[in-house]
Amino acid sequence: MPERTLDATDLDRGATREAAVRAGRGLRLPKIRKNRPGTAAGINREQLDSLQSGPGEVRVTVIDYRADNVLVRTVDDIDGFVAGHRPEWSAVCWINVDGLTDMKFVSALAAKYELHPLAVEDLLHVPQRPKVDAFGEGPAGLPGTHPARLFVIARMLQLKGGHLSSEQISFFVGHRTLLTFQERPGDVWDPIRRQLQKPGSQLRRADASFLLYALIDAIVDHGFPILEFYGDRLEEIEEQVLMGAGQEVIPQIHRLRRELLLFRREVWPMRDVIRTLQREPHECMGETTRTYLRDVHDHIVQIIDLCDTYREFASGLAETYMSSLSIRMNEVIKVLTIITTIFIPITFLAGVYGMNLRHMPGEDWAWAYSAFWAVCLVLAGGMLVWFKRRGWL
Amino acid sequence: MPERTLDATDLDRGATREAAVRAGRGLRLPKIRKNRPGTAAGINREQLDSLQSGPGEVRVTVIDYRADNVLVRTVDDIDGFVAGHRPEWSAVCWINVDGLTDMKFVSALAAKYELHPLAVEDLLHVPQRPKVDAFGEGPAGLPGTHPARLFVIARMLQLKGGHLSSEQISFFVGHRTLLTFQERPGDVWDPIRRQLQKPGSQLRRADASFLLYALIDAIVDHGFPILEFYGDRLEEIEEQVLMGAGQEVIPQIHRLRRELLLFRREVWPMRDVIRTLQREPHECMGETTRTYLRDVHDHIVQIIDLCDTYREFASGLAETYMSSLSIRMNEVIKVLTIITTIFIPITFLAGVYGMNLRHMPGEDWAWAYSAFWAVCLVLAGGMLVWFKRRGWL
Amino acid sequence: MPERTLDATDLDRGATREAAVRAGRGLRLPKIRKNRPGTAAGINREQLDSLQSGPGEVRVTVIDYRADNVLVRTVDDIDGFVAGHRPEWSAVCWINVDGLTDMKFVSALAAKYELHPLAVEDLLHVPQRPKVDAFGEGPAGLPGTHPARLFVIARMLQLKGGHLSSEQISFFVGHRTLLTFQERPGDVWDPIRRQLQKPGSQLRRADASFLLYALIDAIVDHGFPILEFYGDRLEEIEEQVLMGAGQEVIPQIHRLRRELLLFRREVWPMRDVIRTLQREPHECMGETTRTYLRDVHDHIVQIIDLCDTYREFASGLAETYMSSLSIRMNEVIKVLTIITTIFIPITFLAGVYGMNLRHMPGEDWAWAYSAFWAVCLVLAGGMLVWFKRRGWL
Amino acid sequence: MPERTLDATDLDRGATREAAVRAGRGLRLPKIRKNRPGTAAGINREQLDSLQSGPGEVRVTVIDYRADNVLVRTVDDIDGFVAGHRPEWSAVCWINVDGLTDMKFVSALAAKYELHPLAVEDLLHVPQRPKVDAFGEGPAGLPGTHPARLFVIARMLQLKGGHLSSEQISFFVGHRTLLTFQERPGDVWDPIRRQLQKPGSQLRRADASFLLYALIDAIVDHGFPILEFYGDRLEEIEEQVLMGAGQEVIPQIHRLRRELLLFRREVWPMRDVIRTLQREPHECMGETTRTYLRDVHDHIVQIIDLCDTYREFASGLAETYMSSLSIRMNEVIKVLTIITTIFIPITFLAGVYGMNLRHMPGEDWAWAYSAFWAVCLVLAGGMLVWFKRRGWL
Amino acid sequence: MPERTLDATDLDRGATREAAVRAGRGLRLPKIRKNRPGTAAGINREQLDSLQSGPGEVRVTVIDYRADNVLVRTVDDIDGFVAGHRPEWSAVCWINVDGLTDMKFVSALAAKYELHPLAVEDLLHVPQRPKVDAFGEGPAGLPGTHPARLFVIARMLQLKGGHLSSEQISFFVGHRTLLTFQERPGDVWDPIRRQLQKPGSQLRRADASFLLYALIDAIVDHGFPILEFYGDRLEEIEEQVLMGAGQEVIPQIHRLRRELLLFRREVWPMRDVIRTLQREPHECMGETTRTYLRDVHDHIVQIIDLCDTYREFASGLAETYMSSLSIRMNEVIKVLTIITTIFIPITFLAGVYGMNLRHMPGEDWAWAYSAFWAVCLVLAGGMLVWFKRRGWL
Repeated sequence: MPERTLDATDLDRGATREAAVRAGRGLRLPKIRKNRPGTAAGINREQLDSLQSGPGEVRVTVIDYRADNVLVRTVDDIDGFVAGHRPEWSAVCWINVDGLTDMKFVSALAAKYELHPLAVEDLLHVPQRPKVDAFGEGPAGLPGTHPARLFVIARMLQLKGGHLSSEQISFFVGHRTLLTFQERPGDVWDPIRRQLQKPGSQLRRADASFLLYALIDAIVDHGFPILEFYGDRLEEIEEQVLMGAGQEVIPQIHRLRRELLLFRREVWPMRDVIRTLQREPHECMGETTRTYLRDVHDHIVQIIDLCDTYREFASGLAETYMSSLSIRMNEVIKVLTIITTIFIPITFLAGVYGMNLRHMPGEDWAWAYSAFWAVCLVLAGGMLVWFKRRGWL
Repeated sequence: MPERTLDATDLDRGATREAAVRAGRGLRLPKIRKNRPGTAAGINREQLDSLQSGPGEVRVTVIDYRADNVLVRTVDDIDGFVAGHRPEWSAVCWINVDGLTDMKFVSALAAKYELHPLAVEDLLHVPQRPKVDAFGEGPAGLPGTHPARLFVIARMLQLKGGHLSSEQISFFVGHRTLLTFQERPGDVWDPIRRQLQKPGSQLRRADASFLLYALIDAIVDHGFPILEFYGDRLEEIEEQVLMGAGQEVIPQIHRLRRELLLFRREVWPMRDVIRTLQREPHECMGETTRTYLRDVHDHIVQIIDLCDTYREFASGLAETYMSSLSIRMNEVIKVLTIITTIFIPITFLAGVYGMNLRHMPGEDWAWAYSAFWAVCLVLAGGMLVWFKRRGWL
Repeated sequence: MPERTLDATDLDRGATREAAVRAGRGLRLPKIRKNRPGTAAGINREQLDSLQSGPGEVRVTVIDYRADNVLVRTVDDIDGFVAGHRPEWSAVCWINVDGLTDMKFVSALAAKYELHPLAVEDLLHVPQRPKVDAFGEGPAGLPGTHPARLFVIARMLQLKGGHLSSEQISFFVGHRTLLTFQERPGDVWDPIRRQLQKPGSQLRRADASFLLYALIDAIVDHGFPILEFYGDRLEEIEEQVLMGAGQEVIPQIHRLRRELLLFRREVWPMRDVIRTLQREPHECMGETTRTYLRDVHDHIVQIIDLCDTYREFASGLAETYMSSLSIRMNEVIKVLTIITTIFIPITFLAGVYGMNLRHMPGEDWAWAYSAFWAVCLVLAGGMLVWFKRRGWL
Repeated sequence: MPERTLDATDLDRGATREAAVRAGRGLRLPKIRKNRPGTAAGINREQLDSLQSGPGEVRVTVIDYRADNVLVRTVDDIDGFVAGHRPEWSAVCWINVDGLTDMKFVSALAAKYELHPLAVEDLLHVPQRPKVDAFGEGPAGLPGTHPARLFVIARMLQLKGGHLSSEQISFFVGHRTLLTFQERPGDVWDPIRRQLQKPGSQLRRADASFLLYALIDAIVDHGFPILEFYGDRLEEIEEQVLMGAGQEVIPQIHRLRRELLLFRREVWPMRDVIRTLQREPHECMGETTRTYLRDVHDHIVQIIDLCDTYREFASGLAETYMSSLSIRMNEVIKVLTIITTIFIPITFLAGVYGMNLRHMPGEDWAWAYSAFWAVCLVLAGGMLVWFKRRGWL
Repeated sequence: MPERTLDATDLDRGATREAAVRAGRGLRLPKIRKNRPGTAAGINREQLDSLQSGPGEVRVTVIDYRADNVLVRTVDDIDGFVAGHRPEWSAVCWINVDGLTDMKFVSALAAKYELHPLAVEDLLHVPQRPKVDAFGEGPAGLPGTHPARLFVIARMLQLKGGHLSSEQISFFVGHRTLLTFQERPGDVWDPIRRQLQKPGSQLRRADASFLLYALIDAIVDHGFPILEFYGDRLEEIEEQVLMGAGQEVIPQIHRLRRELLLFRREVWPMRDVIRTLQREPHECMGETTRTYLRDVHDHIVQIIDLCDTYREFASGLAETYMSSLSIRMNEVIKVLTIITTIFIPITFLAGVYGMNLRHMPGEDWAWAYSAFWAVCLVLAGGMLVWFKRRGWL
């Protein structure tokens, strides 16, 4: 699956426009390609098996842990894995899947953990809007005797080479198991993995839903460095405006506003996800987890607030720049007008005495030349006084 | 009934304006023509029979199915059809009517399925706003002993020749019967029909309300390719702006914004329709259907989100273009001013010595010519220094 | 009472501005003149009798009907009418008053039907905001033993000579009686009157509240032709813009937007009125009426929707026009700059060799003339190349 | 306490700007000066006594009335008044205080009627936002055995010399007593006072809360003449715009918009006050009063509506004016460009043949002069044709 | 911790732009630096001890008081303090910590008062959004047997050298203890401290939550002088606009709008904090406190209202200025056009008769010179009449 990237900054940094466009890197809009309008919703086991796998490797990492033990495995033989059992001492099992291209993996896990066909569809058809779904039904989409599952879709935002890169993360939360599916390798969870290695850390002592909290918290908190990056660019641009920067400032501001808009659109629905997780009780969500989610909710509200402040600042900056442009244009035109209106009449006068008429009064007068300059000075002076009066000087 | 079409793109593609207007294809606004303000609402049997049928054929297709059987019929003799019985094995009967011009068909079906006069009126007086009405009353509009009916109005959006074409679809949902009325032939339901042919598909095993879900899902999901079309055009326009496109860009952006506005206005009320169907229980709506409608609701929210993003992008694009225009104008005027203010004073000077006065000091001086050029250069140089100081160069 | 009229279109149609203003027909704003701030609210019998009647005739029409009988009377002797009785067979009695100038009529009817003083005040002090009030008290404004009354204020919009004309309609609904007061003769209810003449029509079989429904439905549905009129004007204006129309287009658009704004402001509170009638039960409102009011509610929502679409279209049109103006101005200034900057230097050069200096190098040279032209061409060509490079040509 | 005045109109009416500013009458912004952040809230008896009284007289008027009797007194000796008793027959006692400068009066009344310290603080620290507070506690701010009081803050708007003047009115409503405090003499209640003199008026027969209603009704209804004043000014300005008025129109419009904004900000919270009084039951509010407050609520909604309409009209007017300015500028620049581009080339040509070169081809040709004119006409004609083609003429 | 400062005004006051930017004082945006996305939330005892303390001193002041006694201490030996006991007579103990750099202090107090790890994290990671959290759990974040605590975050705004300075204040409210943490020394609470010294003041007689109220009230009321400062600057700017100020006015207005935006963003969430404290009961909040918080709520609403009014005024001012600029530019261009179009044709004419052709008709004519002037006057006069007709003069 290709990365959704906004490579506006490339343009800033000197690449010529044509090159950027030719290289297909004009601002790519977010697009959702659903190739099958009209087919049945939900993807069940058989359909999964019939789906063609795409290119790209899939990596499955399994971490079993409890307060005093931890086991990290990389799974290559998925069939062997789903046939086996988890270690008896394991309190929580976190299965992380990097890449959605190999249907074999998705199919095996969907079967083992009895994932709902609608959730499997949302997992595969990226990008979905962040949301929380609580399923308690069997695999056919009909009410059944299935164990409870919480299905959460989140968006993980990262800066890659100065561009906002957005990836869908799907969580399936059970009582003692957490499944996470990422579109591609590379995430913001390394600190979590390190914490899981530390014996006695709060994470190790807590349940599966607390792991969900920790993962979402890491995703949300990663918004702060992204905003800091945008804040730095905003300050740079402002500095340029203050230094009397040229016209290249406007497209930069517009691009920044556009990226902030995209950022906000990605973050906004996450707020509802976190609020839902925090407020609506579910048998898989621990009480402590919900207390801690309050903290994540505060952070996301702060991020949205900050993003809005930045957007209004950027708008104000554009407005200030355009105003200053208007003011400068006004001044330029004033200078043009003053020079023109002073010289045009006296140039005409010089033209008159340049005529080759036989009888030109004064032509032979000894003081004619001086008189001409005197008239010119009077005219120009009169104009200047008039301009002064109108407040143009 | 004529199609509501926005043929803005025709204009884009080289047709001259005058031709477009003369051909009556200026942007047609959505209009609702109700020819009978003041007459009684609702259309009952007798009124239906007295209505004159318009031109255009009507095609009625009936599909009876259950898990292990399916029967597709095209009905020509509507009276024979309503007099007959459906096959005994039939679990669900879907009657689809293409075209609303022949009153005979509407009248016969309204009588057989005891449709409410108000619903029949809404069915015929297109376009109506999408909505859900639950009727349980008899044909006179008075509470009665009638079997329950759910009446749903939806809008089916299609792209025809690059134009947004919008059509009203009316659904009557009973316990085992689904009636659909389309304004004209041609729809987005072929995948559904193919699924109904497949034995063992989920659709075949489910009830009438699940068919309603599948049809609405197909309509909603068809919004994605339409948005993709608009996204492609937006990217094209942006490319043109980046390449320094000319003035033809602005009307294109305005037209696109207008089409996105229309698109949003058509889609927006559909959200309420789906939410109502999903949330408010009705005896004709199955439990599974309502679970699956959650999925459709997610999709429509995503479509509206995407549409709003596109609209803001288009606005930003227009703003960027106008800003760049202002900046360029500023530059042009600066050049004009610089050239003018440099040459006007020295032209005047040349004019002075072009005068035919008898006594012109310096006229006879051998270095006069060189001195003149020196003065000109000093004046021009002084101007340039002054411009430099003001930051104009 | 004078009509509130927006005669903007007069201006469009060739009347000169001055004439329009002198004739006192500049855009009249909606104004509410309450001459008595500080006096007691409500108008009781004695106050009514003391109010001076204005000029203008009042016409009272009374229609008694039931399913199989109907009687239409015009009442001149109001005292005789209120003293008499209605026909025994009469199921519903509709009393329509055209004109509010003769206090005798209002006073007599207010006494006979025990109308609440606050309602009588609202009836006379036009324009009021559309609203629904339920009164069950006696004439003194104190809770009493009075029969129930529903008091409804609506606004009837009509196009008169291309202008939006707005009139207040006051309804008093009893169990078997409906009183309607219009500001002046002329309404949109003729189809209703014709229906009342038709034996066996649904209206004839229903109760007084159904008549209320029919009258409000006629008022609301009359919004569609008005919007159609505005839509046609919008299309005309757009055609003009496409044809490269002149500057007279902007005031036309502004005027249209203003009229649409007024239209919306008049229609908007009607929505609440209809919703209140439909949702809040009252002993005078029949069950069937409330089912049918759902239909009216749909229509008014559609009207408001359409009006908003038109307003956004009009805004977009103005924006497009102003953008195109900017673009054209840009082009004009570019031409000016190019011509000026090409000719100013070479004009200066010609001026130099027009000087009457004795010693001008090259003056006597045989090729001087040709050399001069060569220099001019080189200068002009250089300029053109430079313009080309900057993308001005 | 100084009056908050917007003397924008002074500027309109010919006073020069400088004078206006020098006289300190630039648009005064609404400001709230709280001199004691950090001190305890609420002002109790002792604090009141220690507050220094300001300059300015205080006038206390007491009106006792019942249906068949009325007594109006002006109180000079406040200590005597609070020590005495009200007439035994008195049903309602209205004590009106004009001026808040003499603390003796406030202190004596606060003690006699046991006003809450928080309310006393709000009464003195003007301006407060309009609000309703229900107190039932003793003077220390702690729950006590105090009789119920309703504390209402309203704003009385008046036009003084064309300026909006805003004054805080504080009401204390008891069962049989109404206290009103005004910032300064002069109010809109004279019609109420006249009504109280009339035996048998509804006001005389009703309770204290009905008097509250009547006073608030008078304040609210006084908004209509103010809006009428603004409406008249808006029409005047529009007339000027239609007559092609000069640049002085824009500041007038901006000033009017600003005044309408202030007006709206003052009126808006009054709506909540009236709704609270009408909806939330309180032992001091009679049932009839609450019925009549519905009427006041209608009026204030109408005022806000009208104010919004005026504001949108004013915005539209400014936009229209700026658009027309752009259009005219466009036209001016077009004329400039046409004249310049026609004459600049032929002026150059004349300049060429004005050169004093020895060998000028054609100089001696008999038809040279006519040929020159012919060339000029061809050039100018060509230009005109080219302008025509571009649609500039 | 560095102060968040907006030093826009420095720029106003003559410092050159470059200097300002070089000195790193371009408008600093609000930024939140969270250095540990991905680590566990909450900071417990051990983590606190391991955190490195920063530079800067910490000052702890403890005030114990009851109605008839008060004791103020400055604590240097925090370990000794937490080991000791409070005076037995002490009704309320207020511990104020200035500075968050020394972890020893925070750690000791967090341990003694069993502060929740999440609250401790919010306390240290400034800035947080203002909020109220109610904790009743033990230190591990798990439900426990801990005494109730109310955790409040507020923002204290001060003007320092004309810049808005914002500081986070964290409150922990217990039954008889109030802890406040400030980012740095210097606050708005000196009047509170003086009141606590006064025997018999309301504050001395009340409980800990009333102290919370008094402190928040002081913070909120301090918004009024800040707004007054902005109001004064707004008036200054307006005066400049009225006096026909130059272009330096626009950046001033934009800067003011930006500061008002920041002010609003800081104040807005405080409203929710106060509403929550006032509405939601908690065992640590006294009844009287909640009555008094109503007053603070009124004040904050007033502040937000006033801030919005100022922002709209500032926007209007900018618009007025830009409009006046447009109008002046229009006028300038008109003058340029008039002068140019009058003189260009007659200059051409003079040029024609300046040509050195042998045969120039009229050259020898005695009246040629006068005739030339006559033609020029006619041409110029004709132009003037034409301008007059177009309304340009």
